[in-house]
Amino acid sequence: MKARVTVMLKSGVLDPQGEAVRHALGSLGFQGVNGVRQGKVIELDLAEADPAKAEAEVKAMCDKLLANTVIESYRVEVL
Amino acid sequence: MKARVTVMLKSGVLDPQGEAVRHALGSLGFQGVNGVRQGKVIELDLAEADPAKAEAEVKAMCDKLLANTVIESYRVEVL
Repeated sequence: MKARVTVMLKSGVLDPQGEAVRHALGSLGFQGVNGVRQGKVIELDLAEADPAKAEAEVKAMCDKLLANTVIESYRVEVL
Repeated sequence: MKARVTVMLKSGVLDPQGEAVRHALGSLGFQGVNGVRQGKVIELDLAEADPAKAEAEVKAMCDKLLANTVIESYRVEVL
């Protein structure tokens, strides 16, 4: 079973990486980019076959390792 | 108009970051993780209101800046 985790900085947390991308896009001539936020996506290939159990396991992984829940929020999709 | 770009290493390209996560998950006691791939997600807030034009613009951004198309593939979603 596959799962995808998307981790983004919470809104309100400064995102210098996104800001750098926004600036670079402007330098390349792309107008009208009002904001950029950059996060990470983690695709997991799990042995677990039950979707509910897989989701619970992935959420535990996020809380323990994949996301810093003080400043980041995460979203889990079981595919 | 918002757009989301997901950039992943192409399959076959070694992903040391994903491999490190897989190893760390194993150390934390998560069994049954067969594979991990890590990529990035970029959320753009665009002034462009036409979805087709926005998608074309974001694809151009990917080819020029956001993805290294030699080793990475990208997916664009206009939200």
